[in-house]
Amino acid sequence: MVKVEMLTVGKELLIGRTVNTNAYWVGGRLASAGTMLDRVTTVDDDLGEIAASLREALRRRPEFLVVVGGLGPTPDDMTLKGVARGLGVRLKLNVKALLMVKEHYAKRGMADVELTPARRKMAVLPAGAEPVMNDIGTAPGVRLLAGGTTVYALPGVPAEMRGIFRRWVEPEILKRLGGMHRSYVRLKLEGVLESALAPAIASELLLHPGVYIKSHPRGIREGVSRIELDVAVVGKDAGAVEAEARAVEGEMTSAVSGAGGTVISRAEDSNARGET
Amino acid sequence: MVKVEMLTVGKELLIGRTVNTNAYWVGGRLASAGTMLDRVTTVDDDLGEIAASLREALRRRPEFLVVVGGLGPTPDDMTLKGVARGLGVRLKLNVKALLMVKEHYAKRGMADVELTPARRKMAVLPAGAEPVMNDIGTAPGVRLLAGGTTVYALPGVPAEMRGIFRRWVEPEILKRLGGMHRSYVRLKLEGVLESALAPAIASELLLHPGVYIKSHPRGIREGVSRIELDVAVVGKDAGAVEAEARAVEGEMTSAVSGAGGTVISRAEDSNARGET
Repeated sequence: MVKVEMLTVGKELLIGRTVNTNAYWVGGRLASAGTMLDRVTTVDDDLGEIAASLREALRRRPEFLVVVGGLGPTPDDMTLKGVARGLGVRLKLNVKALLMVKEHYAKRGMADVELTPARRKMAVLPAGAEPVMNDIGTAPGVRLLAGGTTVYALPGVPAEMRGIFRRWVEPEILKRLGGMHRSYVRLKLEGVLESALAPAIASELLLHPGVYIKSHPRGIREGVSRIELDVAVVGKDAGAVEAEARAVEGEMTSAVSGAGGTVISRAEDSNARGET
Repeated sequence: MVKVEMLTVGKELLIGRTVNTNAYWVGGRLASAGTMLDRVTTVDDDLGEIAASLREALRRRPEFLVVVGGLGPTPDDMTLKGVARGLGVRLKLNVKALLMVKEHYAKRGMADVELTPARRKMAVLPAGAEPVMNDIGTAPGVRLLAGGTTVYALPGVPAEMRGIFRRWVEPEILKRLGGMHRSYVRLKLEGVLESALAPAIASELLLHPGVYIKSHPRGIREGVSRIELDVAVVGKDAGAVEAEARAVEGEMTSAVSGAGGTVISRAEDSNARGET
């Protein structure tokens, strides 16, 4: 496992304007790679909040900290200023980043666009940081080292965030992780209460430490209780991962029958996702 | 403004299994009430993580801390144990909570269901806490005081969380807040770049401190740049709130025209929400 934290910045995430799909997406990518997000923190577009939450995150010594949002040209885009304040470093115009901004406009037939302060701002980075190419939007991503933590700052627009994450952040995390395998199965159950299944889950978790087993109650329809049960195993050895996953699945299936329930469907996925 | 933080607990939120719609929903409720979430922290179903993140949140001295998730009967539901550890208090069986659990089963025609340890667990609360009625699911909510902070712990199942929030948490926050009014308008713009609008937003924010103005780039379609612009004002006096909101909207509309763009639509909402 590689310890990765995420810091998502933006008032829109705190006022019910935007669902934090960026944290969801990054979490899913890391899970399918065989690791997971350790913590997600969401703060307002506020210098003090960004600086303080960054320092708090670094104190927990993650290997990677992915900061998302607030890299654009508008005044409320103050993530890099907050990061600089949190680290106690200056902001300075980065020539490489400025070239990226210019190139972005040039590619879109706006080579003669005026480099106003708002546009230059996207190339003003904390000292020591390097820009990371954004193939979709204007503001480059940013990479810097802070103690033992590699900090990436990415734009909040999902397509831009995903593009930079896939091309730069994920390969670096995967390299640190080495090859990992993951098995994931979701069982849909009927006719058994979550509380009736709890003892079986507890004993499975004792027998198989490190295996992820989680039940999600899905309500009672026409008097029949419905549950979704997830089983996930992660490890270096693909064969061992599959064997352990099938063992746990078999034992849970028996427990469901024993409690009077039925497995009505089964879905395997290397990266299962669901709403709610 | 009332300072409210949220702590959402659950591995499913960290592995791309579940989008954090609970934080989104609570954020929207608070925003339409005239305040906002100060911070959202998401941690794993892990005793140490829950206890540590609770202590960190309390150190920031919010008036309310809403903890969501991990109140159910299964072994990974360990939020109350983590809260007790974080506060340094014992867990004990709460008689009132046990009655609520029994009543829940009785209402569903299961009055004779055995109160197994897994079921009793839902009535084991940190010492000093009181249970809060859950009209939908089995596990009661929990309310306790920690220093100057009122802590609520709610189940993670959205319908249960929402029910308890509406009936118990929100009224208590509204009472603390007093009457607040909010004006919210979203303008859809075409033909103007976000970076061209940035100086106008900056000067509006200087003229109208406390007003929320945020631009969301929506990409370029057929060579035309599209932006959504949000303007929100919150205050005690409804007339003043509306007047300021209309002033800012007028000035931003002029700035859009001045930069060669057009306002193509306008939506007013006391609680506007959107995806992404």
